[in-house]
Amino acid sequence: MDKMTKVEIIMNPEKFEDLKEAMNGIGITGMTVTNALGCGLQKGHKEYYRGVEVEINLKQKLKVEIVVCEVPVDRVIETALRILQTGSIGDGKIFTYEVVDAVRIRTGERGPEAIKDPK
Amino acid sequence: MDKMTKVEIIMNPEKFEDLKEAMNGIGITGMTVTNALGCGLQKGHKEYYRGVEVEINLKQKLKVEIVVCEVPVDRVIETALRILQTGSIGDGKIFTYEVVDAVRIRTGERGPEAIKDPK
Amino acid sequence: MDKMTKVEIIMNPEKFEDLKEAMNGIGITGMTVTNALGCGLQKGHKEYYRGVEVEINLKQKLKVEIVVCEVPVDRVIETALRILQTGSIGDGKIFTYEVVDAVRIRTGERGPEAIKDPK
Ligand SMILES: Nc1ncnc2c1ncn2[C@@H]1O[C@H](COP(=O)(O)OP(=O)(O)OP(=O)(O)O)[C@@H](O)[C@H]1O
Ligand SMILES: Nc1ncnc2c1ncn2[C@@H]1O[C@H](COP(=O)(O)OP(=O)(O)OP(=O)(O)O)[C@@H](O)[C@H]1O
Ligand SMILES: Nc1ncnc2c1ncn2[C@@H]1O[C@H](COP(=O)(O)OP(=O)(O)OP(=O)(O)O)[C@@H](O)[C@H]1O
Ligand SMILES: [Mg+2]
Ligand SMILES: [Mg+2]
Ligand SMILES: [Mg+2]
Repeated sequence: MDKMTKVEIIMNPEKFEDLKEAMNGIGITGMTVTNALGCGLQKGHKEYYRGVEVEINLKQKLKVEIVVCEVPVDRVIETALRILQTGSIGDGKIFTYEVVDAVRIRTGERGPEAIKDPK
Repeated sequence: MDKMTKVEIIMNPEKFEDLKEAMNGIGITGMTVTNALGCGLQKGHKEYYRGVEVEINLKQKLKVEIVVCEVPVDRVIETALRILQTGSIGDGKIFTYEVVDAVRIRTGERGPEAIKDPK
Repeated sequence: MDKMTKVEIIMNPEKFEDLKEAMNGIGITGMTVTNALGCGLQKGHKEYYRGVEVEINLKQKLKVEIVVCEVPVDRVIETALRILQTGSIGDGKIFTYEVVDAVRIRTGERGPEAIKDPK
């Protein structure tokens, strides 16, 4: 199967080392990490915006992007859940997107070859 | 309708509080914010690159990402325009992308359920 | 052709000025740049994770995002390869994605018009 998918994980920074090792354990060989501010609506606090009770927090998050082809998307998601799921509000989100093409700049390889582990 | 879409807004940082409140007002409950440098070609200044008159500026921008399903994409775009449109050069850009899947890490919920406001 | 594509280039920061000028030279008039940490599996060092030899490094990278319509994606990729390819491990990666819609906030223009050079 030659479909390439980007898995984007929005997570709490303190779990990053564990996530990285777990991803490596399932054969992930590259990822891109960005600092982000996560903005979620936190219910249960008493704040009001135009009469509606809300509180919007900005929390430090990491955005981890992993483009996969050979490693199944569901295996990446299960691995992220295993490491990141605590059952508490704010554990994070995962989004997936279709990748049209990939290029390994060093070699010029295109498509799935570009994201396979280079020999 | 179960289609999920990512709306990516590249904007001037000073308007962020207004944008956040307006998005909350239309039912948006989560967003991810990243610092970025925007690079636009500014015409009208006298600078030359290989004989072509250009000036490329790097300006501090915010990238705001909002994945929606129930809230219509057009409502998000209209809301962003209402807050961000001043008519001046550099007001920003919006791009939209299809989201294949979403996961709420706390519960393991997948698809549109994962981005609906948790009860 | 009215298809819009995002080209995402993960690259070493020191080449950014050259890349920017080269992209300008092929008619690119906007891009968005983010600091990122690149995580690649570097073979050849002796480290072990659960019995498997690995070393995962986090390296400072830039993520450069360019949404194109008129300028062909392949021209952007060839230009990036020309500037960034040294043949050394870690030269970077390029990923492309379909863009569903674009909006120029200043004018409200939608679709390909929104990313064409404003007159
Ligand atoms: N709709 C969304 N669009 C973009 N980013 C989002 C969205 N929802 C959440 N996020 C990002 O994911 C981060 C983590 O979200 P969070 O775990 O709080 O999700 P949640 O749906 O509120 O789940 P929970 O009920 O467990 O808190 C947020 O801080 C934000 O960065
Ligand atoms: N083609 C593009 N690809 C990726 N990002 C872009 C592109 N065009 C603009 N951007 C991002 O959007 C930001 C804002 O762009 P800007 O508002 O200047 O757009 P514009 O089309 O030049 O409109 P205006 O004529 O109003 O200046 C830029 O700083 C850059 O971060
Ligand atoms: N599968 C991937 N998903 C997301 N980002 C990736 C992936 N692979 C690489 N990257 C990003 O690209 C950057 C550069 O990768 P790199 O050039 O080392 O690729 P590579 O395939 O290991 O090629 P090389 O063999 O030349 O090192 C990484 O630091 C990371 O940010
Ligand atoms: Mg939450
Ligand atoms: Mg501009
Ligand atoms: Mg590498």
